[in-house]
Amino acid sequence: MFRHTKRLQFEAKPERPDPVYARKLQELIGGAYGEMSVTMQYLFQGWNCRMEGKYKDLLMDTATEEIGHIEMLATMVARLLEGAPATMTAEAVQDPVMAAIIGGMDPQQAIIAGGGALPANSQGVPWNGGYIVASGNLLADFRANAAAEAHGRLQTARLYNMTDDPGVKATLQFNLARDTVHQKQWLKAIEELEADGLETPIVPNALFDEEDQEHNHTIWGLSDGTDGPKGDWTKGDDPLEYLTDPEPLGGPASAPAPDPALFGTYSPVQDLKGTVKSQAKSAAQKVTKKKTKKKK
Amino acid sequence: MFRHTKRLQFEAKPERPDPVYARKLQELIGGAYGEMSVTMQYLFQGWNCRMEGKYKDLLMDTATEEIGHIEMLATMVARLLEGAPATMTAEAVQDPVMAAIIGGMDPQQAIIAGGGALPANSQGVPWNGGYIVASGNLLADFRANAAAEAHGRLQTARLYNMTDDPGVKATLQFNLARDTVHQKQWLKAIEELEADGLETPIVPNALFDEEDQEHNHTIWGLSDGTDGPKGDWTKGDDPLEYLTDPEPLGGPASAPAPDPALFGTYSPVQDLKGTVKSQAKSAAQKVTKKKTKKKK
Amino acid sequence: MFRHTKRLQFEAKPERPDPVYARKLQELIGGAYGEMSVTMQYLFQGWNCRMEGKYKDLLMDTATEEIGHIEMLATMVARLLEGAPATMTAEAVQDPVMAAIIGGMDPQQAIIAGGGALPANSQGVPWNGGYIVASGNLLADFRANAAAEAHGRLQTARLYNMTDDPGVKATLQFNLARDTVHQKQWLKAIEELEADGLETPIVPNALFDEEDQEHNHTIWGLSDGTDGPKGDWTKGDDPLEYLTDPEPLGGPASAPAPDPALFGTYSPVQDLKGTVKSQAKSAAQKVTKKKTKKKK
Amino acid sequence: MFRHTKRLQFEAKPERPDPVYARKLQELIGGAYGEMSVTMQYLFQGWNCRMEGKYKDLLMDTATEEIGHIEMLATMVARLLEGAPATMTAEAVQDPVMAAIIGGMDPQQAIIAGGGALPANSQGVPWNGGYIVASGNLLADFRANAAAEAHGRLQTARLYNMTDDPGVKATLQFNLARDTVHQKQWLKAIEELEADGLETPIVPNALFDEEDQEHNHTIWGLSDGTDGPKGDWTKGDDPLEYLTDPEPLGGPASAPAPDPALFGTYSPVQDLKGTVKSQAKSAAQKVTKKKTKKKK
Amino acid sequence: MFRHTKRLQFEAKPERPDPVYARKLQELIGGAYGEMSVTMQYLFQGWNCRMEGKYKDLLMDTATEEIGHIEMLATMVARLLEGAPATMTAEAVQDPVMAAIIGGMDPQQAIIAGGGALPANSQGVPWNGGYIVASGNLLADFRANAAAEAHGRLQTARLYNMTDDPGVKATLQFNLARDTVHQKQWLKAIEELEADGLETPIVPNALFDEEDQEHNHTIWGLSDGTDGPKGDWTKGDDPLEYLTDPEPLGGPASAPAPDPALFGTYSPVQDLKGTVKSQAKSAAQKVTKKKTKKKK
Amino acid sequence: MFRHTKRLQFEAKPERPDPVYARKLQELIGGAYGEMSVTMQYLFQGWNCRMEGKYKDLLMDTATEEIGHIEMLATMVARLLEGAPATMTAEAVQDPVMAAIIGGMDPQQAIIAGGGALPANSQGVPWNGGYIVASGNLLADFRANAAAEAHGRLQTARLYNMTDDPGVKATLQFNLARDTVHQKQWLKAIEELEADGLETPIVPNALFDEEDQEHNHTIWGLSDGTDGPKGDWTKGDDPLEYLTDPEPLGGPASAPAPDPALFGTYSPVQDLKGTVKSQAKSAAQKVTKKKTKKKK
Repeated sequence: MFRHTKRLQFEAKPERPDPVYARKLQELIGGAYGEMSVTMQYLFQGWNCRMEGKYKDLLMDTATEEIGHIEMLATMVARLLEGAPATMTAEAVQDPVMAAIIGGMDPQQAIIAGGGALPANSQGVPWNGGYIVASGNLLADFRANAAAEAHGRLQTARLYNMTDDPGVKATLQFNLARDTVHQKQWLKAIEELEADGLETPIVPNALFDEEDQEHNHTIWGLSDGTDGPKGDWTKGDDPLEYLTDPEPLGGPASAPAPDPALFGTYSPVQDLKGTVKSQAKSAAQKVTKKKTKKKK
Repeated sequence: MFRHTKRLQFEAKPERPDPVYARKLQELIGGAYGEMSVTMQYLFQGWNCRMEGKYKDLLMDTATEEIGHIEMLATMVARLLEGAPATMTAEAVQDPVMAAIIGGMDPQQAIIAGGGALPANSQGVPWNGGYIVASGNLLADFRANAAAEAHGRLQTARLYNMTDDPGVKATLQFNLARDTVHQKQWLKAIEELEADGLETPIVPNALFDEEDQEHNHTIWGLSDGTDGPKGDWTKGDDPLEYLTDPEPLGGPASAPAPDPALFGTYSPVQDLKGTVKSQAKSAAQKVTKKKTKKKK
Repeated sequence: MFRHTKRLQFEAKPERPDPVYARKLQELIGGAYGEMSVTMQYLFQGWNCRMEGKYKDLLMDTATEEIGHIEMLATMVARLLEGAPATMTAEAVQDPVMAAIIGGMDPQQAIIAGGGALPANSQGVPWNGGYIVASGNLLADFRANAAAEAHGRLQTARLYNMTDDPGVKATLQFNLARDTVHQKQWLKAIEELEADGLETPIVPNALFDEEDQEHNHTIWGLSDGTDGPKGDWTKGDDPLEYLTDPEPLGGPASAPAPDPALFGTYSPVQDLKGTVKSQAKSAAQKVTKKKTKKKK
Repeated sequence: MFRHTKRLQFEAKPERPDPVYARKLQELIGGAYGEMSVTMQYLFQGWNCRMEGKYKDLLMDTATEEIGHIEMLATMVARLLEGAPATMTAEAVQDPVMAAIIGGMDPQQAIIAGGGALPANSQGVPWNGGYIVASGNLLADFRANAAAEAHGRLQTARLYNMTDDPGVKATLQFNLARDTVHQKQWLKAIEELEADGLETPIVPNALFDEEDQEHNHTIWGLSDGTDGPKGDWTKGDDPLEYLTDPEPLGGPASAPAPDPALFGTYSPVQDLKGTVKSQAKSAAQKVTKKKTKKKK
Repeated sequence: MFRHTKRLQFEAKPERPDPVYARKLQELIGGAYGEMSVTMQYLFQGWNCRMEGKYKDLLMDTATEEIGHIEMLATMVARLLEGAPATMTAEAVQDPVMAAIIGGMDPQQAIIAGGGALPANSQGVPWNGGYIVASGNLLADFRANAAAEAHGRLQTARLYNMTDDPGVKATLQFNLARDTVHQKQWLKAIEELEADGLETPIVPNALFDEEDQEHNHTIWGLSDGTDGPKGDWTKGDDPLEYLTDPEPLGGPASAPAPDPALFGTYSPVQDLKGTVKSQAKSAAQKVTKKKTKKKK
Repeated sequence: MFRHTKRLQFEAKPERPDPVYARKLQELIGGAYGEMSVTMQYLFQGWNCRMEGKYKDLLMDTATEEIGHIEMLATMVARLLEGAPATMTAEAVQDPVMAAIIGGMDPQQAIIAGGGALPANSQGVPWNGGYIVASGNLLADFRANAAAEAHGRLQTARLYNMTDDPGVKATLQFNLARDTVHQKQWLKAIEELEADGLETPIVPNALFDEEDQEHNHTIWGLSDGTDGPKGDWTKGDDPLEYLTDPEPLGGPASAPAPDPALFGTYSPVQDLKGTVKSQAKSAAQKVTKKKTKKKK
């Protein structure tokens, strides 16, 4: 069960409206690597965690913080839109700067939300559950979390360079810091899973004997770049082998004859040139055609 | 530019049809962590890679291999559907095993694809570009790749336990091996990015002075679990600090007064009980009501 | 900012696994009227509420409760899947009841979530932000809330009739009760908005003079059913007028001539039969054709 | 079965092109509360209505009108785009007002539709069937309808304030009027369902004895705002009780041990600090690691 | 403007319930090539048609018929679900045939629609506007229409083979006939567009001089199949030339150096082996690392 | 299996950055008729083709080329974004032309892709698998292909008119040429399918005797336009018959009584005015109401 306090985790008010920036901030709210994603990813991972203890607690602590980050950014969006020229008409567009601002705004923030944030990204695509994962395998999930926080901090850093407003910058400085912590914690938790003997570097920690022993250590060189083998991945302890111009192992990618009741195009007979035998078939066709016409 | 050979990278034919399994295999084709995802993720990362050399070549080599994995699995689906009871009618459903098989099939594999694979997951949701990322920051991207291969191998391993067919199992053994290699290679490439001095563990390698120095090393304990601080993340070199029951830093999450032209509900006046002053307002309301009625 | 306690708001454990039902429960988690929807709808409405006080507090209280409802149902799903035949193979499908259960399961709960819940509905479609609304106009929003809780209780009641498990039924009895409360509270809050003079029955409380006075009280009878006018909506105070077989008011729905640079099909000239003049055009066509051929 | 007349239900032509506004109008065509939504919602509700008579006729009359509203707005969009600078090149962008207009246009209206409307919202997201509901329960559905018309009129009113063009304004005045009628009719139809004894205020009219009697009249105060209990919802006949800082009723939100065949992270043993026992496990790990290496 | 009659365009009632088939029928309602698609595609094409006359009238006639086809199939679904075991519980699942039927049903038809049809396909994916096109170029659009009717009749024919119910078959016989007519009419309309001199076979009828004259008549043989050149497309009047193993024309697919403010991974310097110079960089890295640590 | 060469199929570099155009180009990458669509459509059709030989080879040759077209356009986007004002702040927006450019840019190309292309269309909607079809019936599929290439060339032609940059124009000239070839080849392949006797003009080549013989040659005139019958489709060999103002053939579109366990609104009794009998019902209602109240 959850509880809420009205106070924001962190707060710094923007000095002035910036509706074009309010649109961009949507990416951090409802984008694939926005706060809705980390909130839902950590919540579902926490609920799906099968061991009580430190990992589950870390997940629920962080998930709960992230709900508050959506709150911070949604509040920021509303404040950036205060006084925005939402209802400026075509006449006003004669002022070019104003026209440009209107062109760069998210029209739905005005039309749908009345000057507020939306559960969508900077291009208006609604957030969806396909962005997140909670597999029950903590190593797979923590790797996804470390990646999510990396992209989260990266996008925050890019947005940091798109504003001069001290209040917005202060908020993003807080978010950058949180993304630093969260990257560290998931990287450390990955190490801990291994130290605790719960997982080993390859996910899942199973089926190593069953997997194909010929092809579990080779990189297939299928592009003509020649630098791939120069990486240290081909060296040291447990090196990967780089195959240059490898040959396929299987036969042609043929699909079986179709179920006649599903009307796939098919002929079992081919002539010498590799094309279907048209004579016999076209005879049959003429009959069909006649029949079709007859029916009208 | 790409070239194609008709031969499959690897091939093992199923011994018998299994349409229920053909549906499940869709997850590895068009799911969030299926072959379409890794294909497109590596292609866009490769094209978006700003340095010629080993990283770009590794990306393009692997991307090119993954296209062939979609091919392998799409071919496998068509073969698993050969002889499937796609057009069995309600009468046939009197045989319970057949009825169950029909119930568990993907109806679109018959109706849309005529007994073939679809660009969708095991629940029929079409693959979409929101699953992938290509940021230009290789560390952020390789972390996402290592996570994707972890989930890919995890899902393959789960599916491996859902079949007894030797041909299917052999194919999945190949895929498990490839997912092992690809996990290793992205983990090694992450190390190499750091060894080359291109990136440091926290993404992006920037804004460390700008980020909030008070909050870049603390984990906020916002759930009542007590085990979170017991993890080694609070110990050793560069430990994270666990805050127990921390207080919010900001004020209330208030949104500004709305733009009157957008008709948000608003009253600047509140009575002692924290509710809006209804007397003055309801007088205004009566007038409005009269006016509304008058119009009809 | 939010806080979390590990204890569930309400809990009753299922007596036995029921993986087919676990799939159906997904509708209450990630469906259009599931718990993710009410959580996000109330959160965004609360953050977008422009008046401090009772309305905002009611929104945030209820939103916070709903996060815990996702938690309850996600936990229930994991428990219903305990011991589910997730990895049963095609051989096992020879047992018809088991085969049927496998056919009716959500394959993603096993393949993706490892035996847990997903942020998706009962057909596997991921939850998305397009389901919710937070307009800043509280009357419009509370009406949507009352509708959401009505559909929520309706779907819960339908699911209540699809199980005999006492633990599941007890949980749904709790949810039915909460949906009753929440319906009542939004209906009462709608009355209160009017009592407070903040809104009147028609949303928004504006533009009554500007709207078309001829057409703001008529129902257009455009289907041939004759019972529409028999409803009390045509009677009493402020009756609506039912137009029988009304005529359209405008001219033909014509689109203007297209921009030639966009290559829409167009001819300004028509012959007597209402078709384009083919002679002149086909002359031009012959020239074009010659030119096209020439180029190869 | 349907019939069509070429004449628009209502028509007023725009005085001049306004491509930026043409983009915004898409919200009323293909947005969540646009004309496509009410068309499809009322059609499916009408077809799914189980009683012949006034309710079904009202649904079909209104549904049929709404198809014509899509027609009106699609025609309006084409007219607003007449003469729009769709193919203006980067050079032309040196004129700032023109540049701003191009930036604010919907590029797909030119590239895909050749200067016409799209079945999408103002941010280009295609309309989808997840926006609508038709449950067979008329009270639940009519509440959704009253909400939809409220949001429809609200968005129309907001768009009304974003234009000065008399033709556009006249069309929106017609639409405002129709949304007024439709709000009234659904509100009246809700009353009629109750007057006819078909439904009572809580949906569905069932399971009142089965629902949890302890929790069907309490509002849980889970946010720290203190104004929630001040609303009249806690007063009068059938008051709701406001619980201040209520305690959760259930135990911890624990998930069961995972199916080993699905490879969730799990250890049944924990040491005193609440962490997993690492010694025994890490021994096992070393073995696994050796085995993995051996295979290459 | 539209009008509706309560009578179905065609009607044949199913003899008995068949809920598994009711799910499959959803493909013809809300699938990519279902009735919602042709309805919306023809409506938007009609409204976007820039010439009054026969083409526009044909579009509007057909569009209007298709709305009635959704009606026919939605009604059929409700009738097929009459008496369906929607609320059968886990106990009942002991009967294997019933269990199988429940497994094969669309759970949303019961939970959301109360035993009716949904605006979604046979896998529950909601219909969306991305399925349709209305470009203003009638040849491009009519080709899409001829394709849509081909897939529509194909899917109908497949579904025809999945039922023995005379009422369902009679309805599909009607639909098959309509799909035959509609295929014919769009094929004939394509011929007419050319006969009228409005379009020529290649869409759009423009830019033939501007397009690349070297590459507008060659097929690039990029797969190793040898039968491609055997088709008649390489023969006769206006033959296409088949290039065997053609070479790429451009240079490497390099992306430019990234904007430093966006933090893409980049180094301008590479050592002899094609890898980045690590010495200089790693020195810089050490400094950064120290700085990062210092901050905590 | 696939192979990749680093060289682009064709290359012409843009002379200068044009970020607004880079957004528009997304339509050709990830739009419904962009390169991702034709790539995936041809790949799945090729893999799903049931006959070895010329058709399958043509599909795989073309599919393989199209992957390279995504590569060309993704590279072009990165180059058009070189030097784009991605991180320009609100201050800079005082320059109106720059402000307009920022407003017209795709914010995700900077925030997510770091100055690169996305797997999405010009409005930011991610590409999805619902755009494509691969039915196994080659005539149905080739018709979809001919339509796709028509829309592809149409959209390319429109974009050709939106730029003056010689490098961009040269690339589009190449693409226009390829779209010309591909239109021709699918049109020729359609003829060949018929010449080979594999298919006849109506898809599928089956069920001509079963389809409704009364309704397989009539166009229903359901709109009041009078020009529909003037088309040549009503003339010549195998003419279609135009029905003027045809009557529906079926009875009312009634749905059966609902399953009581699903709580649809229903009353079997109606009074003389076609409305439900309210007296008896409202008595029952009073009882219910009392009961509901009693419970609190």
